[in-house]
Amino acid sequence: MQRLHSRLDITQGKIELAHGAGGRASDQLITQLFKKHFDNVLLAQNNDQAVFELPTGRLAMSVDSFVVSPLFFPGGDIGKLAVYGTVNDLAMGGATPLYLTVSFILEEGLPLSDLEKIVISMAAAAAETGVNIIAGDTKVVERGKGDGIFISTTGLGRVPCGLNLSGDQARPGDVIILSGSLGDHGIAIMSQRENLQFETQIESDCASLLDLVMQMLTAAPGIRCLRDPTRGGLATTLNELAQQSQVGMLIDESALPVKVEVEAACELLGLSPLYVANEGKLVCVCDARDAAQLLETMRQHVKGRDAAIIGQVQEDAHAFVQMKTKLGGYCLVDWLTGEQLPRIC
Amino acid sequence: MQRLHSRLDITQGKIELAHGAGGRASDQLITQLFKKHFDNVLLAQNNDQAVFELPTGRLAMSVDSFVVSPLFFPGGDIGKLAVYGTVNDLAMGGATPLYLTVSFILEEGLPLSDLEKIVISMAAAAAETGVNIIAGDTKVVERGKGDGIFISTTGLGRVPCGLNLSGDQARPGDVIILSGSLGDHGIAIMSQRENLQFETQIESDCASLLDLVMQMLTAAPGIRCLRDPTRGGLATTLNELAQQSQVGMLIDESALPVKVEVEAACELLGLSPLYVANEGKLVCVCDARDAAQLLETMRQHVKGRDAAIIGQVQEDAHAFVQMKTKLGGYCLVDWLTGEQLPRIC
Repeated sequence: MQRLHSRLDITQGKIELAHGAGGRASDQLITQLFKKHFDNVLLAQNNDQAVFELPTGRLAMSVDSFVVSPLFFPGGDIGKLAVYGTVNDLAMGGATPLYLTVSFILEEGLPLSDLEKIVISMAAAAAETGVNIIAGDTKVVERGKGDGIFISTTGLGRVPCGLNLSGDQARPGDVIILSGSLGDHGIAIMSQRENLQFETQIESDCASLLDLVMQMLTAAPGIRCLRDPTRGGLATTLNELAQQSQVGMLIDESALPVKVEVEAACELLGLSPLYVANEGKLVCVCDARDAAQLLETMRQHVKGRDAAIIGQVQEDAHAFVQMKTKLGGYCLVDWLTGEQLPRIC
Repeated sequence: MQRLHSRLDITQGKIELAHGAGGRASDQLITQLFKKHFDNVLLAQNNDQAVFELPTGRLAMSVDSFVVSPLFFPGGDIGKLAVYGTVNDLAMGGATPLYLTVSFILEEGLPLSDLEKIVISMAAAAAETGVNIIAGDTKVVERGKGDGIFISTTGLGRVPCGLNLSGDQARPGDVIILSGSLGDHGIAIMSQRENLQFETQIESDCASLLDLVMQMLTAAPGIRCLRDPTRGGLATTLNELAQQSQVGMLIDESALPVKVEVEAACELLGLSPLYVANEGKLVCVCDARDAAQLLETMRQHVKGRDAAIIGQVQEDAHAFVQMKTKLGGYCLVDWLTGEQLPRIC
């Protein structure tokens, strides 16, 4: 007798509680879906932990979880988001991502075909960014106790010697650069959810920023800080950096790149692009002397084509972020308060 | 004006969608709850990634997620489980855990007092096992789209040179040792859920195995493999090891330590202790020459007091796990099939 495992019925099958029980059905799911697509030497160790060797050096570790609804949206899906999200958090520290762990919390009844699409999307995103998914865990909750699939990813990356990117490094006189247009991800999700139709479909900007960051670091190794304005949008990210560095910031509304259709959707939905989530954009604070060179480098990269200098850092004991409006006035840009767009990532 | 953050109302407050939005409410939750209790230098970096330096060497990485219901049970809670679970997975590879990342998926309406209890429990478990929680993420889903709280933890640990514990190392002639009684965790959860009353309350065995493992490795560095029989129970763990090592196993039913009250509950519920989850037990496969010394060492430790030799490894092209029953017959011990106890961890 051989240990015959029946084949998963990807086309018609659904997630059952047994897939999370740790027995034969779990093994089937792991072998025929996760290991098949995430295949690598460390994952194949088949132990409760992956063991690997690393040369001496500085490491970065980051975790992110994803509950986005809907699971599939124009320009991406929860799988792609879960890989790029953590890769980007590592890249913001100047780290080259090496390994990812993944945890899936699945709701009973999730179609296996959806799960497979998500897994394939994660595998492609991992391959593109050069990370291996080396460990995973799957739990299943009863129908009505989850929402299809929730994913958490933790990444481990290597940080080059001498690099010290951190949110507390911004200094008065520094320049603030944004890598591209604001609000694409949030509005893509929102349009899908509210079934809004626009002339042009708005796509999520969901993307890896790793290669852009690597080129930026080569062009100007003196960058002070990088951060991706995801949940809470640009406004919240700038407030975080201002608070951490104990500086003020002044941005120029007319310099902010926002696509026409995103601006229209924001007006319709009563949102400000300053607070809408992005998933493929970064904010960079750098020495004013490096700004021109850095902007030039970013604009040559496909993910930094629309990069713009949006403001500067200034002294401010209150660590306020202010904006010069298009009409020439000044306003305070506060943290996001309340919940603008639930489950955007 | 100062950046005044109102205080979280831990006693009466509940989780709201805004706590997951990345803005001011998220910051309040992170500062007043997570950072307060998980406090350490790396977490205090306040960036999207924690950066640290490690000397050359082998590392182990492991992930686990927790959806246990109820959140609080005799002998533990989801927080303790989430820390010990990942610490144990690292320990099974002989690794000393260093760092943990944590992701929380919270349901709108979760009482902040419950969340605080869980966070305090995690902080205590982390302190006990010497790990620092260096990065975290929190998402909030709408009422009815989650179930209170789901937690994922990823651990990074250091593996000593020359150690090679792995599920594929078992060889015919090796001895199988179990560290203590079977089924305590699963039955504790089940009794709570079904509101079963026994003369003695059955408590979960939820515990860190790290110090037991360290003493075992000192006593017998030639241990082949260690694994904790969690979901799927002892039966599934032995089948995994047998399959990975391509060997058979023969265990002796009369040698299996099972508490009287757990045995009674299993009979009542129609369960076999072989398949019930444990959260503070380990299976060890070792060279027969090391078995006596190892057993002695384990029994001197509070978490190995009831350790027992339960069987041996044998040649078997089918990689079957068999059991000599109390009546003297032989039966096949198969993988867990189906779902025995949903959401046990």
